[in-house]
Amino acid sequence: MIIEPIVYSGNKLSIIDQRKLPDDRILVKLNNITTVYNAIKKLKIRGAPAIGIVAAYGIYIHSLRLADQKKLNRISFKKAVNYLNSSRPTAVNLAWALDRMLSVFDEAESNSPKNLLYKLEKTARSIHHEDKEHCRKIGLFGSELIKDNSNILTHCNAGILATGGIGTALAPIYTAIEQKKDIHVYVDETRPVGQGARLTFWELNQNQVPATLITDNMAASLFADQKIDLVIVGADRIASNGDVANKIGTYNLAVLAHFHKVPFYVAAPSSTLDLKTKSGKSIPIELRDSNEVLSFWRIKKAKNYEVWNPAFDITPSRFISGLITEKGIITKPFRKNIINQFT
Amino acid sequence: MIIEPIVYSGNKLSIIDQRKLPDDRILVKLNNITTVYNAIKKLKIRGAPAIGIVAAYGIYIHSLRLADQKKLNRISFKKAVNYLNSSRPTAVNLAWALDRMLSVFDEAESNSPKNLLYKLEKTARSIHHEDKEHCRKIGLFGSELIKDNSNILTHCNAGILATGGIGTALAPIYTAIEQKKDIHVYVDETRPVGQGARLTFWELNQNQVPATLITDNMAASLFADQKIDLVIVGADRIASNGDVANKIGTYNLAVLAHFHKVPFYVAAPSSTLDLKTKSGKSIPIELRDSNEVLSFWRIKKAKNYEVWNPAFDITPSRFISGLITEKGIITKPFRKNIINQFT
Repeated sequence: MIIEPIVYSGNKLSIIDQRKLPDDRILVKLNNITTVYNAIKKLKIRGAPAIGIVAAYGIYIHSLRLADQKKLNRISFKKAVNYLNSSRPTAVNLAWALDRMLSVFDEAESNSPKNLLYKLEKTARSIHHEDKEHCRKIGLFGSELIKDNSNILTHCNAGILATGGIGTALAPIYTAIEQKKDIHVYVDETRPVGQGARLTFWELNQNQVPATLITDNMAASLFADQKIDLVIVGADRIASNGDVANKIGTYNLAVLAHFHKVPFYVAAPSSTLDLKTKSGKSIPIELRDSNEVLSFWRIKKAKNYEVWNPAFDITPSRFISGLITEKGIITKPFRKNIINQFT
Repeated sequence: MIIEPIVYSGNKLSIIDQRKLPDDRILVKLNNITTVYNAIKKLKIRGAPAIGIVAAYGIYIHSLRLADQKKLNRISFKKAVNYLNSSRPTAVNLAWALDRMLSVFDEAESNSPKNLLYKLEKTARSIHHEDKEHCRKIGLFGSELIKDNSNILTHCNAGILATGGIGTALAPIYTAIEQKKDIHVYVDETRPVGQGARLTFWELNQNQVPATLITDNMAASLFADQKIDLVIVGADRIASNGDVANKIGTYNLAVLAHFHKVPFYVAAPSSTLDLKTKSGKSIPIELRDSNEVLSFWRIKKAKNYEVWNPAFDITPSRFISGLITEKGIITKPFRKNIINQFT
């Protein structure tokens, strides 16, 4: 692994600006809570686990500033938590990481500011390091699904660039490569933002994983030609019944896989599980600016130009063969098995 | 209708360069057979019926030059036919129009050059004008499928810009609008070349048809939300069993429509029918340059960057509710009904 999307050391947080990839690999410093908020909102950093990690470090860095100003109290801390949590609505890892930081604050509030800050930093580092370990385990469990000489389709980027480790959907692929399996990956370019083309295709090439780039509307032909043996995607939120919110286009692949009888797996750490959300119907779907679609075609926004640009879609659990988590592969019935494993 | 993609008058042929739309509306002259070949190959003009029309005019213009050089004979004419026919492999209207011009040449070869040229020009004009009339009829037949207050999904551009008239897939839509039906169109952007975003979305907006642009991977969510009542697409070639070759992504929509129980219609004039081809399996699929996919993401072509870029896919006839033609709507069993209607 030669890419480190989130770099933290000695109270300094930097990220690779993923909007500039693959042409430019620019490390940007996130010095304060506003830059963290904007980095998430504007997709400089993206990927559900990565957003959680950056938010945790971000709230710690903000706490340092609050402490300097003698304002490190629950009201200001909670305000900052709410602010960062509002940067993007769908991925639950953001809320999960911020909740965890808030719990630590509440437990250690009576400590000295120095000790409180120590505990907040330690928790942010733990969130980062645990995610790395979860990716490793997802890789091990998921690699069991990958047969030698097989073709895997993935969507968006749920790889190194989306996590603190070797990815979620891409972790089984990297692990299978380490196990010397002969595999090949088809990468959906993932319109409108191109996380497949710009990030996944790039990171697979950087890591010498055989990969072919396609546009999103080509996958169906590969299914028809029986060229896909397995689909693995990531997740931004998993409801307690197993419904999955993930990058727009995921539901399309789920229907295609179902129809062509190809296994369809979702890889995610437990921080992506939202046990409070009973089904995909309750997951908020972020609608993004029409320019993400139009500018690509050099079409200037006009009053009468209507564009629908949801960032995510919902895949009902019946289309999902299994959830690859750090605790193993969860299969149907999802609600029961999720509760057994994660509560 | 305020757009004229093919302009012919007094031995002069011009087309709108569709690669430049919608930013620039540039009329380019096609003076000789090489410019005609390149205009087709490089997608300055595209759309199965439009390619046939331009090829017919192109072969006539070349015949004028051959006559000037006293070289208007069957060998040189046939050579030119083969050359133009090799510009793109999938759309059969190209071969159909060129075959028709060759038949006229063969019938009138013994005539004076002046008379032969007159007949060739007349045939090219007929191909153009008949296509306009076929579009009108496709519009009338197809509009019967469109209910008031309905949402229609289309893919690529099978509209004014693809034909000599009001289009194939878009003809029923324009006709329904004339009939004062309250309808709304979802337009797939149609990667990689963006005929949906750049051409269909633009021509619908130019003609005040309510339209929403989506990326190709968003249609599935619209189906899930029951927001699509009808799908209409065009065709580049229809085999005698009803299998359809059309823009990449069509098969994807066919599976989605089938799965969500939404009617899926293909609109095309009889020049798109290839009775000699028994099924979609025998239709050649054009593979285009990887730069069509990569350049959008500012990814420079590299030796190890593998891209699969088929321009078309095959939709098996079982996914198709009916074929909207100038002779009416053909339904199952397709092979029998196609033969009854078109032979």
